[in-house]
Amino acid sequence: MAERRKLELAEWAEVTCRKLRQGGLLLTSVSADGKPNAMTIGWGLLGWFYHGNPMWVVAVAPARYTFKLLDEVAEFVVAVPSDAIAEAVAFCGKESGRNMDKFKATGLTPIPSVHVKPPSIKECVANFECRIYHKQRPPHLILTPEHRQRPLAQQHTIYFAEVLGVYAGG
Amino acid sequence: MAERRKLELAEWAEVTCRKLRQGGLLLTSVSADGKPNAMTIGWGLLGWFYHGNPMWVVAVAPARYTFKLLDEVAEFVVAVPSDAIAEAVAFCGKESGRNMDKFKATGLTPIPSVHVKPPSIKECVANFECRIYHKQRPPHLILTPEHRQRPLAQQHTIYFAEVLGVYAGG
Repeated sequence: MAERRKLELAEWAEVTCRKLRQGGLLLTSVSADGKPNAMTIGWGLLGWFYHGNPMWVVAVAPARYTFKLLDEVAEFVVAVPSDAIAEAVAFCGKESGRNMDKFKATGLTPIPSVHVKPPSIKECVANFECRIYHKQRPPHLILTPEHRQRPLAQQHTIYFAEVLGVYAGG
Repeated sequence: MAERRKLELAEWAEVTCRKLRQGGLLLTSVSADGKPNAMTIGWGLLGWFYHGNPMWVVAVAPARYTFKLLDEVAEFVVAVPSDAIAEAVAFCGKESGRNMDKFKATGLTPIPSVHVKPPSIKECVANFECRIYHKQRPPHLILTPEHRQRPLAQQHTIYFAEVLGVYAGG
């Protein structure tokens, strides 16, 4: 496989913010035995707290299949979709990977990441490869009061991850 | 005063990320009796966790004058400097507002914000007006292991804030 094209994060911040709020981004994860999954996310924080690498903060509800996978392999990829795959992104936000291979179901192409086990996505314009360094279980005060009224067992876990590299898709 | 020009956040994400890592952004705060201050920040997370407004997460060390001001008034503005004021930004990262009025010292122009008490900055290309809804005191695991080896009393507090609006400077 050809070497993956490295991107400069700031240059992709606009499209990343835009897509996060319009249709969502894709978050890929992988099971201990190597089966990949992708879910759609509309929440996320991007920035720098480390003096070195940038970071992503994402939140996943315990009912999600991704929640189980992140416990098995503490890495993920945040993939920024192109307009062309909007339908696949919507699908990944509705269906669960417990019941199907979403890559096969949508035609999205998983490709090897450079630094982490979960795949990057060929049809995405940017893939942020992330390694989780801290999981914060609920309750936490950084979510909305409405969110915190849900039963504890349904509240999101928050994942703090270091971005090891940002790469183009295909 | 003329109505302030509202900006679309995503459009400013690139310059915000770039400046955060190259020279820094300015964070303004204000004392209970109305004296404004500005400090330079090189850490920050921007994104959406709320379903509504975007948010900023910033960290301030207890030795900073800003730390005291954020305890007095739980609001701040993250201001994105233009290239022209790089020297003023560097100054605000070196000097303390305890000893001087940094706006007078640098020639930066504080202007009224739309939603919050701390001023916006006329010479900045974007001003994110933020209201703190949660302060997380140390120890916390979302900073680097190196950071967490410092005495607890020196470790940063992390501020989670809702962005009420983004506006141009002058």
